[in-house]
Amino acid sequence: MSKLEELEGFFSPKVVGFYGVSNVMQKFGTLHLTNLLSAGYQGKVIPIHPKEEEIIGFKAYQNIKEVPEKVDLVVIATPTEYINDILEECGQKGVSHAIVLSGGFLEVGNEKGQERMKTIADTYGMKIMGPNCSGEVVTPDINITHVPWPPREGGAAIISQSGTYAVQPLIAISSKIGLGISKIISVGNEVNTDLVDYLEAMEEDQKTTTIGIYFEAVRRGKEFIEAVERINKKKPIVIIPIGQTEAGTRSAKSHTAAITSPGFIIDSICEQTGAIKVKNSIEMLNLLNGFDSLPLPKGNRVGILTMGGGPGTLMSDLFESNGMKVPILSNKMQEKLKPWMPETASTMNPIDLTYSDDMQNYLNVLPDLLLKSDEIDSLIIYGLMGSEYHKNLVNVPESIKENPSIVTMRNFGEMMHDFFIAIFDELIKYKQKYDKPIILTCYNTREERFVAYLQDHGIPVYYPEEGVWALIRMWQYAHFLKEKGIK
Amino acid sequence: MSKLEELEGFFSPKVVGFYGVSNVMQKFGTLHLTNLLSAGYQGKVIPIHPKEEEIIGFKAYQNIKEVPEKVDLVVIATPTEYINDILEECGQKGVSHAIVLSGGFLEVGNEKGQERMKTIADTYGMKIMGPNCSGEVVTPDINITHVPWPPREGGAAIISQSGTYAVQPLIAISSKIGLGISKIISVGNEVNTDLVDYLEAMEEDQKTTTIGIYFEAVRRGKEFIEAVERINKKKPIVIIPIGQTEAGTRSAKSHTAAITSPGFIIDSICEQTGAIKVKNSIEMLNLLNGFDSLPLPKGNRVGILTMGGGPGTLMSDLFESNGMKVPILSNKMQEKLKPWMPETASTMNPIDLTYSDDMQNYLNVLPDLLLKSDEIDSLIIYGLMGSEYHKNLVNVPESIKENPSIVTMRNFGEMMHDFFIAIFDELIKYKQKYDKPIILTCYNTREERFVAYLQDHGIPVYYPEEGVWALIRMWQYAHFLKEKGIK
Repeated sequence: MSKLEELEGFFSPKVVGFYGVSNVMQKFGTLHLTNLLSAGYQGKVIPIHPKEEEIIGFKAYQNIKEVPEKVDLVVIATPTEYINDILEECGQKGVSHAIVLSGGFLEVGNEKGQERMKTIADTYGMKIMGPNCSGEVVTPDINITHVPWPPREGGAAIISQSGTYAVQPLIAISSKIGLGISKIISVGNEVNTDLVDYLEAMEEDQKTTTIGIYFEAVRRGKEFIEAVERINKKKPIVIIPIGQTEAGTRSAKSHTAAITSPGFIIDSICEQTGAIKVKNSIEMLNLLNGFDSLPLPKGNRVGILTMGGGPGTLMSDLFESNGMKVPILSNKMQEKLKPWMPETASTMNPIDLTYSDDMQNYLNVLPDLLLKSDEIDSLIIYGLMGSEYHKNLVNVPESIKENPSIVTMRNFGEMMHDFFIAIFDELIKYKQKYDKPIILTCYNTREERFVAYLQDHGIPVYYPEEGVWALIRMWQYAHFLKEKGIK
Repeated sequence: MSKLEELEGFFSPKVVGFYGVSNVMQKFGTLHLTNLLSAGYQGKVIPIHPKEEEIIGFKAYQNIKEVPEKVDLVVIATPTEYINDILEECGQKGVSHAIVLSGGFLEVGNEKGQERMKTIADTYGMKIMGPNCSGEVVTPDINITHVPWPPREGGAAIISQSGTYAVQPLIAISSKIGLGISKIISVGNEVNTDLVDYLEAMEEDQKTTTIGIYFEAVRRGKEFIEAVERINKKKPIVIIPIGQTEAGTRSAKSHTAAITSPGFIIDSICEQTGAIKVKNSIEMLNLLNGFDSLPLPKGNRVGILTMGGGPGTLMSDLFESNGMKVPILSNKMQEKLKPWMPETASTMNPIDLTYSDDMQNYLNVLPDLLLKSDEIDSLIIYGLMGSEYHKNLVNVPESIKENPSIVTMRNFGEMMHDFFIAIFDELIKYKQKYDKPIILTCYNTREERFVAYLQDHGIPVYYPEEGVWALIRMWQYAHFLKEKGIK
């Protein structure tokens, strides 16, 4: 059986039993149940509760033995003391997979409890995610976490040894940057499935193109390194190590029940395997987004197309001080660009239009010319005309609110909508056409619907600094593969 | 006359004339006019236009000479060729201040045009902001930029040599983090008012508590250093240098018409003056927000109160690897905390509750105990119960949508609103009561109204990493003042 098949019960359960749910508001378990329902889950959910006959409208059973059908997965959020007995019952019933959200085991020194859990699991051949974990997301329709907004479907898998990072921050940021997620897995205390297992499952998973890891402790060091080295050649791996200083280690130790590996181990693993170490969630998720949605850069030459000198300069600085080049374009190329640019613009690279309201030039004609040339390997663009820009005109003084010019301006976004979408669709095509990464940067965020459109259709939209870092690291990865003769 | 008085016409004009505005949608000048109106400006605006009799409902004049009243400030967004003649007329009319948005001068090699501008300005004693600038924001009611959402009123002044950074990114991010702004000034080509002038004006400005600078080039080096050294002792100064590598310099040169100073000059200025260099807008604005809204830390000991091990560990790591301490609390202190925490929680520091839905404990009782003690100098908190959390329950299957438990949960945020606000108000008081900085971190952002409430009432709310960096730099500043015997 392949790793993915072994763990399949977590990823496509048809019937899910819930322990620790009730009709009481805010109950941790209930939140997981309702989030699964809100995500559009099409399977069956079965609450199991010692007293209630119905829980938020679903028939409840007192004991899993009474459930007439086969249960593929149980989710357990009861107090610690009941959990092993529940697992025993589930084992007898033939449940193959369990997510144990509750803590109270190795992480608080309850070695005995965790050992018994392992024995039960092994006896019945049951796979357990956790204990002391934050659950999982399997797009498009499974969200068994306490955060109610699952991210959109896509290719990034995330495996986390930090329960907290696996959910709130990750899901919130993923949604904000439009990152497409295949799976989020919170491994918890890893009683009988661990980081390496899930990593190997994601290696096989067809939907997963790139993998992010929140790393706190290595239990099977050799297997971990081998897996990272092998998988990273096919699916880029991004790692955040957590727990490197005294207080950090103290804190990590108290909540994951594992001996924390020092940061330098991660550095050496990354050096050996080509996996990429980053410092925080935003960097990781931006980078996964780049890997999932863009082709790799084939060289280190970047074209910068900008609506303003400041961001152009800043991006240039960052690229050039981190091993990439922002080459001056050939005279021939500059001549080609000139007719499409204002007189005060600079054609050297950064290609700086200073200001333009001609989005077709800016996001189609100029990118097409630049990407088509053999003078750059990637394109980064700064500046986006927003649809929300003129809505603020509702605040003008009452006396001019209905002035025809004001009304027209207020409706600008609406009027231009279809026209802009056509421009974006064209830009998105260039990415495949020229097989070069395109990143758009601006300070608008997802609340601006044009940003959401681009993000959801495969052009990452970031703050300028963030976009630069994503591209730098994509280039470092591409360079690693080249040097090793892999690609 | 003090510097502030000299420049007062920019900051409190009663009558503003506009050149380069029309009834045509999207016109750059018109955008500035409507944004000023949308900001709630209470003075008079006067469009000046060669042909139109009325512009968006306001009587237009063909020439400024025809305007019956005194005009304090003109805003010019016409093509380059008309500008100096306009300024000449304005000088004759007795206009004392002009903002020239249009470019086409020194930054594109038009030295003559810029020299003539300087001569006109000197002849009439007129102060010019620009040319080639992005205008200004003076809270609460002046926004002469092309971005329609002015930030809230507060103590941070920003002076920018980058026109782009002065507006879109700055205003967008400020609004997102709830930064309170006193003034934003885009200096452009600095024809007769420069960075040093505005810096000295902000020194005097009662509303300004801290100053951010986007720095590209130093024209009056000695005066700049002296000003930074003197002012930084009273109002912390944060600097972003732009234009440090070859391509960066090339780009900076092409759009600001100044010789760019290498980054190491900024490093040495910061070392000498104690001003703080940061890398990007987000860091700068987060830090200004800390300086504006919080007391300075008196020592390097931080208490971390967290709802999850991951963020606790990450924050610990960052503090300890950057010169701050996350000390283990005394046994006595730990005993005091214990009754208020779940059994599985860790009291050492990070103080990790793992999970709790008791916000009163979390944001009042525990912070009060911690801040009151003499074991920590600052408090950073991770985790916030959101009001939007349960709204997603609109997506549950139709059959259970009106289930009483579901309805109750859906309304949870509303029900708890007043209760939560009372808890926040109490937390906000501790900041003054104990004269220690408090930063809240989470992955909710301003769309969550509780985040907005805290931000607008003086508790910065950041992503964990960002909050840590703001506090580290606040400590570095406090430490500098101490070492120099200033505070």
